[in-house]
Amino acid sequence: MSTSSSIEAFKRYKDLVDEHILDFIPEISPLSKSLYEAMRYALLSGGKRIRPVLVLASCDMFNTPLHFVLPNACAVEYIHTYSLIHDDLPAMDDDDLRRGKPTCHKVFGEANAILAGDGLLSAAFESLNKDMLMYLDDPDLLKRKVRAAYSLSKGCGCRGMVAGQITDIESAERSGSEDLFNYINYNKTAMLIRSSVLSGGFLGGMDASTREDLLIYGENIGMAFQLVDDIDDVRSGQDTDKNTYAGTYGLDRASEKAMKYIKRAKDAIEKYYDHAEVYRYLAELLEQKING
Amino acid sequence: MSTSSSIEAFKRYKDLVDEHILDFIPEISPLSKSLYEAMRYALLSGGKRIRPVLVLASCDMFNTPLHFVLPNACAVEYIHTYSLIHDDLPAMDDDDLRRGKPTCHKVFGEANAILAGDGLLSAAFESLNKDMLMYLDDPDLLKRKVRAAYSLSKGCGCRGMVAGQITDIESAERSGSEDLFNYINYNKTAMLIRSSVLSGGFLGGMDASTREDLLIYGENIGMAFQLVDDIDDVRSGQDTDKNTYAGTYGLDRASEKAMKYIKRAKDAIEKYYDHAEVYRYLAELLEQKING
Repeated sequence: MSTSSSIEAFKRYKDLVDEHILDFIPEISPLSKSLYEAMRYALLSGGKRIRPVLVLASCDMFNTPLHFVLPNACAVEYIHTYSLIHDDLPAMDDDDLRRGKPTCHKVFGEANAILAGDGLLSAAFESLNKDMLMYLDDPDLLKRKVRAAYSLSKGCGCRGMVAGQITDIESAERSGSEDLFNYINYNKTAMLIRSSVLSGGFLGGMDASTREDLLIYGENIGMAFQLVDDIDDVRSGQDTDKNTYAGTYGLDRASEKAMKYIKRAKDAIEKYYDHAEVYRYLAELLEQKING
Repeated sequence: MSTSSSIEAFKRYKDLVDEHILDFIPEISPLSKSLYEAMRYALLSGGKRIRPVLVLASCDMFNTPLHFVLPNACAVEYIHTYSLIHDDLPAMDDDDLRRGKPTCHKVFGEANAILAGDGLLSAAFESLNKDMLMYLDDPDLLKRKVRAAYSLSKGCGCRGMVAGQITDIESAERSGSEDLFNYINYNKTAMLIRSSVLSGGFLGGMDASTREDLLIYGENIGMAFQLVDDIDDVRSGQDTDKNTYAGTYGLDRASEKAMKYIKRAKDAIEKYYDHAEVYRYLAELLEQKING
């Protein structure tokens, strides 16, 4: 069971992300103000901030200072947000609503939505590179920053999120094998979540053994996350045209599979006790969702 | 006049880019092979490789080793190529042909073209971050890599290319003031060219005075580059619906303006003699285009 302290820890980090989410967006000229407006709209439209909170968990796990971790936390949310804007486009999922509000292209038009996505992806790496400049004379901290940025860039790109997305779209109209769903869920969702957890670890200077534990946690919680999302969709009758594991193999099998991932994730971080309470809370939240 | 040696230097670097352009694309799973195919198609469709050659000019200017500069040169071409894929989309310029070949979305569909662009932008920063990992134990070289990556990220994003592109699209249907064209051309085109030149400088460890010269060269050659491109379009009767400086103020005034930028660019690098022959060649190439 989640304790009230872990709920509070999670909420405190989420509030910090909400408060600072625009801080690392580069200053945009008034002549391009619609770029800023579209990016801002997407960033402030009610995200759960799971990924940046997982980066901020570095502060509990390694006593890493908040100001050192915050730019990396916001960068992963920029990337997650760009991916939602592009996924919603008419050529992709063609969604009019996201979290109950009109999607970015519905409000700002398709061209501006494409560019807002491009702007957010660029802003993620611009902010991380700018942040590195502050540590040019501190080789140890600079190394941590470089490793965290590499982890994020790997998770979001051609060996991660973008690869998963293209395979997801291409397989949307045929029934998927278990392997194919695993590939899609791993790349489309788990890789960025894994990168968030590992980014926090790199920033905290994790040792090899902790790295292994966080990797197992990140991959497994990421896989569970996508399965639970699909279970929710099936239960609520949303996105029924989408080809997902839960839609293809049924709720029982999807729930059982998700619970296995959650158990592996929890086992990997058990020994860190209170230092891992944010990680543990997310696992318990997913369990609760499965158990309705 | 361009000497045959500067033409050869330029061509040698262009050939190197053509030869290595796929080297820094992350390994993509066969399950996402259409992502790789769309990215490959766009990267191999006959680009002039101006921007990566300007990065490689670092080798002449500072005696920087080729292998040190090549990843940064290819990264800027990934970014340029992604921007062309997205610009050509139906929601943007809606172009069917690019360099005489079908555009990426015509061959691979709109969703895959959007994702191929996203993949190339991600690949640029993934390859640069991966490359930084090789210099973790050499603080001086790592600083150069970080500064070069920051320069590129700034040039391509919300204070550069993406900002210019959104303003260009929004102003397409009304007549522009000179200030507005300057803003668009500077952001949409000159910023990425400036970043290419400065990236090479950072990799070569430039001093403050050389940095100032290269900045002036990069900005001015970049502005001239866009003007000459628009002059070409007016002369050949292409893209006549586009709102450009040459289209609005006429060929004479556009040519005169471009020649001023070219002169400033050439003056800034004059004192570097043979070390700047690639930069000089590009300036002379633009002069020749204006003079027909």
